[in-house]
Amino acid sequence: MLFKYEIEKFLEEDLGYNDVSCKLVPERNVEAMIFTKEKCTLAGIDIAISLFDHFGLQYNSEHSNGDTISKGDTIFHIKGSSIAILRTERLALNFLGHLCGIATNTKKCVDIARNYSDTVKIACTRKTTPGLRKYEKMAVVAGGGDTHRFNLSDTVMIKDNHVKMMGVDGAIISAKEKASFTQKIEVEVESADDAIKATKAGADIIMLDNMKPSEIIDIVDFIKTLTLTNHPIIEISGGIDINNLEEYAKTGADVISMGSLIHKSRWIDVSMEIIASNITD
Amino acid sequence: MLFKYEIEKFLEEDLGYNDVSCKLVPERNVEAMIFTKEKCTLAGIDIAISLFDHFGLQYNSEHSNGDTISKGDTIFHIKGSSIAILRTERLALNFLGHLCGIATNTKKCVDIARNYSDTVKIACTRKTTPGLRKYEKMAVVAGGGDTHRFNLSDTVMIKDNHVKMMGVDGAIISAKEKASFTQKIEVEVESADDAIKATKAGADIIMLDNMKPSEIIDIVDFIKTLTLTNHPIIEISGGIDINNLEEYAKTGADVISMGSLIHKSRWIDVSMEIIASNITD
Amino acid sequence: MLFKYEIEKFLEEDLGYNDVSCKLVPERNVEAMIFTKEKCTLAGIDIAISLFDHFGLQYNSEHSNGDTISKGDTIFHIKGSSIAILRTERLALNFLGHLCGIATNTKKCVDIARNYSDTVKIACTRKTTPGLRKYEKMAVVAGGGDTHRFNLSDTVMIKDNHVKMMGVDGAIISAKEKASFTQKIEVEVESADDAIKATKAGADIIMLDNMKPSEIIDIVDFIKTLTLTNHPIIEISGGIDINNLEEYAKTGADVISMGSLIHKSRWIDVSMEIIASNITD
Amino acid sequence: MLFKYEIEKFLEEDLGYNDVSCKLVPERNVEAMIFTKEKCTLAGIDIAISLFDHFGLQYNSEHSNGDTISKGDTIFHIKGSSIAILRTERLALNFLGHLCGIATNTKKCVDIARNYSDTVKIACTRKTTPGLRKYEKMAVVAGGGDTHRFNLSDTVMIKDNHVKMMGVDGAIISAKEKASFTQKIEVEVESADDAIKATKAGADIIMLDNMKPSEIIDIVDFIKTLTLTNHPIIEISGGIDINNLEEYAKTGADVISMGSLIHKSRWIDVSMEIIASNITD
Amino acid sequence: MLFKYEIEKFLEEDLGYNDVSCKLVPERNVEAMIFTKEKCTLAGIDIAISLFDHFGLQYNSEHSNGDTISKGDTIFHIKGSSIAILRTERLALNFLGHLCGIATNTKKCVDIARNYSDTVKIACTRKTTPGLRKYEKMAVVAGGGDTHRFNLSDTVMIKDNHVKMMGVDGAIISAKEKASFTQKIEVEVESADDAIKATKAGADIIMLDNMKPSEIIDIVDFIKTLTLTNHPIIEISGGIDINNLEEYAKTGADVISMGSLIHKSRWIDVSMEIIASNITD
Amino acid sequence: MLFKYEIEKFLEEDLGYNDVSCKLVPERNVEAMIFTKEKCTLAGIDIAISLFDHFGLQYNSEHSNGDTISKGDTIFHIKGSSIAILRTERLALNFLGHLCGIATNTKKCVDIARNYSDTVKIACTRKTTPGLRKYEKMAVVAGGGDTHRFNLSDTVMIKDNHVKMMGVDGAIISAKEKASFTQKIEVEVESADDAIKATKAGADIIMLDNMKPSEIIDIVDFIKTLTLTNHPIIEISGGIDINNLEEYAKTGADVISMGSLIHKSRWIDVSMEIIASNITD
Repeated sequence: MLFKYEIEKFLEEDLGYNDVSCKLVPERNVEAMIFTKEKCTLAGIDIAISLFDHFGLQYNSEHSNGDTISKGDTIFHIKGSSIAILRTERLALNFLGHLCGIATNTKKCVDIARNYSDTVKIACTRKTTPGLRKYEKMAVVAGGGDTHRFNLSDTVMIKDNHVKMMGVDGAIISAKEKASFTQKIEVEVESADDAIKATKAGADIIMLDNMKPSEIIDIVDFIKTLTLTNHPIIEISGGIDINNLEEYAKTGADVISMGSLIHKSRWIDVSMEIIASNITD
Repeated sequence: MLFKYEIEKFLEEDLGYNDVSCKLVPERNVEAMIFTKEKCTLAGIDIAISLFDHFGLQYNSEHSNGDTISKGDTIFHIKGSSIAILRTERLALNFLGHLCGIATNTKKCVDIARNYSDTVKIACTRKTTPGLRKYEKMAVVAGGGDTHRFNLSDTVMIKDNHVKMMGVDGAIISAKEKASFTQKIEVEVESADDAIKATKAGADIIMLDNMKPSEIIDIVDFIKTLTLTNHPIIEISGGIDINNLEEYAKTGADVISMGSLIHKSRWIDVSMEIIASNITD
Repeated sequence: MLFKYEIEKFLEEDLGYNDVSCKLVPERNVEAMIFTKEKCTLAGIDIAISLFDHFGLQYNSEHSNGDTISKGDTIFHIKGSSIAILRTERLALNFLGHLCGIATNTKKCVDIARNYSDTVKIACTRKTTPGLRKYEKMAVVAGGGDTHRFNLSDTVMIKDNHVKMMGVDGAIISAKEKASFTQKIEVEVESADDAIKATKAGADIIMLDNMKPSEIIDIVDFIKTLTLTNHPIIEISGGIDINNLEEYAKTGADVISMGSLIHKSRWIDVSMEIIASNITD
Repeated sequence: MLFKYEIEKFLEEDLGYNDVSCKLVPERNVEAMIFTKEKCTLAGIDIAISLFDHFGLQYNSEHSNGDTISKGDTIFHIKGSSIAILRTERLALNFLGHLCGIATNTKKCVDIARNYSDTVKIACTRKTTPGLRKYEKMAVVAGGGDTHRFNLSDTVMIKDNHVKMMGVDGAIISAKEKASFTQKIEVEVESADDAIKATKAGADIIMLDNMKPSEIIDIVDFIKTLTLTNHPIIEISGGIDINNLEEYAKTGADVISMGSLIHKSRWIDVSMEIIASNITD
Repeated sequence: MLFKYEIEKFLEEDLGYNDVSCKLVPERNVEAMIFTKEKCTLAGIDIAISLFDHFGLQYNSEHSNGDTISKGDTIFHIKGSSIAILRTERLALNFLGHLCGIATNTKKCVDIARNYSDTVKIACTRKTTPGLRKYEKMAVVAGGGDTHRFNLSDTVMIKDNHVKMMGVDGAIISAKEKASFTQKIEVEVESADDAIKATKAGADIIMLDNMKPSEIIDIVDFIKTLTLTNHPIIEISGGIDINNLEEYAKTGADVISMGSLIHKSRWIDVSMEIIASNITD
Repeated sequence: MLFKYEIEKFLEEDLGYNDVSCKLVPERNVEAMIFTKEKCTLAGIDIAISLFDHFGLQYNSEHSNGDTISKGDTIFHIKGSSIAILRTERLALNFLGHLCGIATNTKKCVDIARNYSDTVKIACTRKTTPGLRKYEKMAVVAGGGDTHRFNLSDTVMIKDNHVKMMGVDGAIISAKEKASFTQKIEVEVESADDAIKATKAGADIIMLDNMKPSEIIDIVDFIKTLTLTNHPIIEISGGIDINNLEEYAKTGADVISMGSLIHKSRWIDVSMEIIASNITD
């Protein structure tokens, strides 16, 4: 969801105060289409629609966020004032290009992981472009991924320096006291021992950070053998991207976190073309 | 320059309202460093400094925007409250990772172009991440690139549909009437004929869009033979990235515009490490 | 944490554009104290400090959020410009009065519940004063309570109309697919049967809404007898306030949610008094 | 009046960025009603309507701000998208609950005072919840009360420390010089002598702060006997609430100021119920 | 008072995102002075100081708002970074030029009126530049004028169409019911008869709109002969400016309202000069 | 273009929180017209329309920005709710009065200059009312003038202190390196010598600051005799207003910059009159 005040702020950045070129020719009623120049998974459809609504443009689309479409496919047909369409163009394409890039990268990673597991989740992290986190995380969702926590106040994350000062048990006890019952508690561990301690102390999520696939497999297997009253989620993280994902997907971890879903994505080449001028509505 | 109200908006996105993990251990005075895990060209140094100032952190750095540094090099030493440092970390790294990525990509492209021309400019476009244009364009500058126009109201751009309706001459005459004398007038052309017409009609910048290098060379050469009272800047654009830049750099164009400087950049892997705790200031 | 832009917005509401009364007498250096006229549990100490900092006032306090203090106790000593102190006064007292009211109400409820359980959590809800949720939830924490989820996007809540359309199992399966692994899934149930179904389907939290204490006890006891791989948290809710809390505290539920912590709280009577004028700093 | 940018800020607080539960079932067209679970005086009707308009919901109501309605009475019938209604619900109810609480408390106080005087005004103060002053003061108006001044720049208030430094006369003379002719000048006095001095010096409003009813009666009576060219309004204030109002209402004062109208109000229990699903509009 | 967020918004308008000219020469420590090129009455001193503080500049001034200074007089000496001073310059001068223009125009009008009356007030109106009302009204105060009401919600204004529908008495009775006791009630009248009716009905202020001086004199004289328990303030308004003020100043009215104080003011020519470079602080 | 969030901010300034006078009489459907009391050139038509749209008012106008109309001419007919019209009135008139004042002043200056040159441009400067630059510059355009640069980051301006430190040539070389190819480079010179140096060094615009007409003529003539590959634009500036414009218009300069277009403009007297009440739409 893009609030109206957000739309105006984004437009202000691109329009400036005196767009001379839109005054060179008279305003007309035109029809345009937005299409992709490469296969991609869609995201940002809702944001583009908010922009069209802002400018009073008519639109239709056969696609939704999450659809994978082919090179040349049309994403939107739009109709309306030529000036409004030109003012929408760059912002709509910048959102679609960036967000479809994230969704497409995510979808590819999810597909790779599905070869090895029906349930493993591919999650992004807090490595997001400043100011755009909510849009980028929703693009990850469109690609079949998991948002992970939104900010520092969502899930409680116990890090290595907490563990150093308080021990795994101490840190988890303290976190349970201070956290809300609605929050999960995640512990970042660097050894099998700590993973097991955290499991026994009742962590909801155990994050194995920067471990080799073989180490991960050992820990996952061991934890599965434990008789537990709760089953922690095993998350792995650290330097994983589309190129090395396969070996991590085999480990049996429940969640694979990849900052690279967002920061190694690249924009999809989407474009707008005016297909008819002076149409009668 | 990052205004204070902007810093607070960016922080609000990342902090949420109740960061439990920072309450698990007592606040201490710590020392940390931010370093790069790969060779890169720096950008966003000023933004990181604004963040440190916001949190009252001490910092020093031996580097400036535009410096190219090596894998492992330290970008900043910082000192201050452990909670403040943890709250700064993610936002500072997200800015540095993203902006150094753009600067590094730009620097590489500039270096490639310099093999063929001492003066050709490598410019970005309006394909920027919504809300971040000013930061991204300054990262292009840090990498040795050119910002191009900031928004629709800067330089007047005459596009193909203007030309279709009014002719090259008519469009330029109209633009000169409506534009400020402080604005340059740029014409997008698709043929040698139109390029020459635009030159004669007094365009400041002629943009050859989506042409092959050989076509570009012909037009550039022809325009150089003309006796003119003004010398238009020849800009080329359309699908140029670091992989095919070389063949465009040879064409003799004055400016090469590449949306890919930004939208095909990828983040540099910068990281923060706490190197001392409970230091006395 | 009160951002600087928030402070200015709050001040703007109270100051207006031309505060004549502060011009009647010359600016002096004064000393004042803020004290309570009734026993209370403190909250908003951090907010008052942000205000003092904004105006460059010196302050000290022997108390922290969560401390219970007696009638007449001093909360802050402050020193500085008489005009700055008068401009701080109303806003600081309004925050302290309102937030200490919530903390005090919460603390009383927590104390009642502790008579029956060492672990039961007393939580607030989304019934908060518009625009002030983060301050009010932190006041609940200061009083020993639990924040519950912050907004609709935190914890996933399955409500009765979801259950009607999809069944308990169906709704939980759908929620697990759509939610992040970092989110807990809570199900609102109205019968023992549904509580058990939800438990078996893997809900993290089961909310018994508007049930009588005797019904709650039956369900809590039954769920405890189940052999489960996960132990859902049992939350109860619906019309509970400080007057009827006791009978709910006896039920064995894990969490008691009370909108009344906030919406039936009343302000604590805190006041400011200038104790010395024309002091030398 | 609730500006559109205000609505969006309030909604942002409650919605977050990814409301999973609204995605569990398909969007439908539903009908709902908002009703009260207890007798109350209405306020915030206009604010609820602004919210409905924001979401494109149809609504009708037989009631207006200021109406007193009975337990079970319907405040609004609304129709529209199930998702839109769920997103409106909490914010609309939080506003209605809080503001009807204030209006109801005010109405009760006004009714008590009417037993003793046809003209005495019951006014609120600047003790308002930060950020919500305009809504809360309008709720006081809905309950038949008086807004008092909105902020420090409205009416000029001469306080005890002004009087100490300049004398009653001096302070009033200074205030008349510095104030606009559109502003009233109010003087806070603590003795009959000062009340009379202020009256003679031309104060528009005399505020008797923290006096006993018997003292107030003496001063009111005395001032009435004076031959004056202006008749100051006598306001009384200080620790007055619904429980002790009666004795103050008998004093003959023109205005009774009660911070407690707002800060001792408690929310009215208003609720929403979906009464039909999949309706055809 | 200029809030920090306001300063940043104003600066953003003038700076843009990439001020190349400040990069042409190295940053130095410089000293500058701001002086006036014509006699003027000062306003906006406080605003300039807020700007200097924002940029960390040192400053001193021998003058205050309201002082009348001569051609060539220095308003401020400032010291600091050359870049900071250049960024402050235009905004500081624009505020000073505009606001001193208003203060100077006001001062001249007040001086003219003082020839005929020691007490008549010269007031501005709601004809103010959008977004700048609070600064402009304070400039009127600096020039010795009266702010009049700040907005539609301050003083209640009964206009001709109210009078047409309800009669003077009816309108005043209704206004007294609906207004706060802290608000004055002003009635706009167009005849002597209505002026008298309004006086008798208890209006606080009577505004004679668009009347000739001779008509005004008759009404003022007549009202003075009445035996009243309250003395309404007589305000006159309508097309009065510095050129025709004299004849209105003789009428005996209490207040002369002049939109022209602001909308016929012209900027004072204030300028900045750098007087020393590379100073040591 | 006036963004919706801007409209609301401007309205907030004028409305306050409780506009009592609009409650005195019932809401009706009325018709009004906005007309001018003096001959003027129109500006701000688009802004008034944004306001009418905000309040759902119907409107029509036979005029556009830039039209010169006569005393008594109607600018708008509007229809709608009496309350909405009263709330629009002051803000619409304040914008129209101020902006038509600027457009009218500009038009007169352009007309004077046209007696001597068909091409000379009359431009405003950065001397604009803080916060209103974009509206004021567009009013200059409506009057036939030129906007000049919008802010410090548009055109690069080389000032005297740059020249002092680096020489004319050095400064221009540095500016060309640091500026974007889309930016023009302007040099402020104080002598014929420097004007010629700047011309030869490739400045796009040469600004002759504070020179006498005779000096300007000499330099303009000399530069015309040069054989150049580029023809710089000659701009003149410094203390030029409508009274002395004529002698500068004769100099042959290409652009005459006049801060006075804005800061010596005065408001046009536009007014609104309600012409029919209780109309049926």
